[in-house]
Amino acid sequence: MTNSNEIAFSAQSDQGMSKLTPDQYPGILLDLLDGHLADVNRNIDVVICGMAGAKQGWMEAPYLETPANLGELGKKAIAPVMPSSGLKPRILSGVCQSANGNEDVMRGEETQLLGLLDLRPGFSGIVCLPGTHSKWAKIENGALKSFTTAMTGELFELLRKHSVLRHSLTDELTGENTDDGISQGLSESVESPQLLTSKLFKTRAASLLSGRQPDWCAGYLSGLLVGSEVAGHKNWLSDEPIPLIGSAQLCSLYTKALGMVGAKTEIIDATKATLAGLSAARKQIIK
Amino acid sequence: MTNSNEIAFSAQSDQGMSKLTPDQYPGILLDLLDGHLADVNRNIDVVICGMAGAKQGWMEAPYLETPANLGELGKKAIAPVMPSSGLKPRILSGVCQSANGNEDVMRGEETQLLGLLDLRPGFSGIVCLPGTHSKWAKIENGALKSFTTAMTGELFELLRKHSVLRHSLTDELTGENTDDGISQGLSESVESPQLLTSKLFKTRAASLLSGRQPDWCAGYLSGLLVGSEVAGHKNWLSDEPIPLIGSAQLCSLYTKALGMVGAKTEIIDATKATLAGLSAARKQIIK
Repeated sequence: MTNSNEIAFSAQSDQGMSKLTPDQYPGILLDLLDGHLADVNRNIDVVICGMAGAKQGWMEAPYLETPANLGELGKKAIAPVMPSSGLKPRILSGVCQSANGNEDVMRGEETQLLGLLDLRPGFSGIVCLPGTHSKWAKIENGALKSFTTAMTGELFELLRKHSVLRHSLTDELTGENTDDGISQGLSESVESPQLLTSKLFKTRAASLLSGRQPDWCAGYLSGLLVGSEVAGHKNWLSDEPIPLIGSAQLCSLYTKALGMVGAKTEIIDATKATLAGLSAARKQIIK
Repeated sequence: MTNSNEIAFSAQSDQGMSKLTPDQYPGILLDLLDGHLADVNRNIDVVICGMAGAKQGWMEAPYLETPANLGELGKKAIAPVMPSSGLKPRILSGVCQSANGNEDVMRGEETQLLGLLDLRPGFSGIVCLPGTHSKWAKIENGALKSFTTAMTGELFELLRKHSVLRHSLTDELTGENTDDGISQGLSESVESPQLLTSKLFKTRAASLLSGRQPDWCAGYLSGLLVGSEVAGHKNWLSDEPIPLIGSAQLCSLYTKALGMVGAKTEIIDATKATLAGLSAARKQIIK
């Protein structure tokens, strides 16, 4: 990020917490910046969110506790040292909710929520961030009041890769058959979210008995999981449209599911929200 | 099984459908019988139930369709050939429910249900068979009217072995801490079965934030899954005690869960039910 607050360039790496030891992060960062540093000079701010701040990440950035003032994210950032690089990276906090019986944690989504507040100043209400671990967040007066995590995306991957259902599923969620499966799964599960564990096996049985194809089954399974998550959060919903922060494909799926329980959505691109959040946090950082 | 209908001996193998090709079954069977055949002479009946009759098993035994008269199980058995062994094994059918949108299959549990009818002549009502794939069955006038499958046991294993929760879990479900976790998981999930996917992640968060130990977390996860299954079947329940056919540990867990929704249970040892079912099927086989 340059001083002008415009995005000078972006770069990605598939390296993350699960693959790296703490001392490998500086090298990965320099590799990503390589070739770009000359353009923007070395006087740039590096602001980082997500699992790099986890205990098993680069350096642990303590959690903010709910209700968490998102205006404090940058101020609480920690600064790992990168001697002789000229860089002073900052890692943003995650947020935790430690009330007994209601424990929850996030790292990364708080920055997207800060980004949402930058894109929609004064926003209050419910936000849904679909993904591997979907988050549902209550935002009020610039603070993250409370949140939940649904393991929807991870469950889909576990079932697809390791369960008895794997014989009945494709890898990709595309095509007319898949859309038909999604609709069927969503409607069953929005109707009876409490029957999720009993519905899952129907994916297999429908393929054995009714000749359902793997693309239909993958859609059905995905619909069951998303429908159950959305219907489980029914009492979080109001008449206000719900911002969805995620990939285009997931946001479209959640829009369909939320439509079935009478809720409207507003789709916000996840990368855009992340960059807006990092920019906003950067302005908060005390130099 | 000898002609006297008493159990002459029993033997076990850890070999099954997932490890064997069809032509390996006869050898495994002979190995199991080795040393015993002389005692009982070779004129014995071999009756088999379960996944040996699946498409990927020894030889496919077609399903009976619901409502399935359990008195027909033996009559519909198929007979793979074992030349020069003197043995004529029979593989019993599984049961399927092929109504579109309600598809389900079982192999093995139908034999345990037949065993239940032998142990409790004239039984009608709901039966629960907890396990990797738990079954809930409606029995009426000697027939299996309809059933559902909950992937409770498989989900527990998937989450324990492959998910992000694995860092927070022990392998064994024993001890006071575990019992405490089970109670907590059961009560949350019986209260709100529709929130299962949102509750699962609390296993991880409770270990990170509240110092919950791996034995507590394993109990909690197990309680969440079983509680959700049981509460999802609330409208199956009546004042009659529900026969539970399964391992002692699982039956005790399900008794606790069913108690929370006001249902009584009667525990029936799974091996006893299987042997009673095989004996009853043997009498039905047309020679």
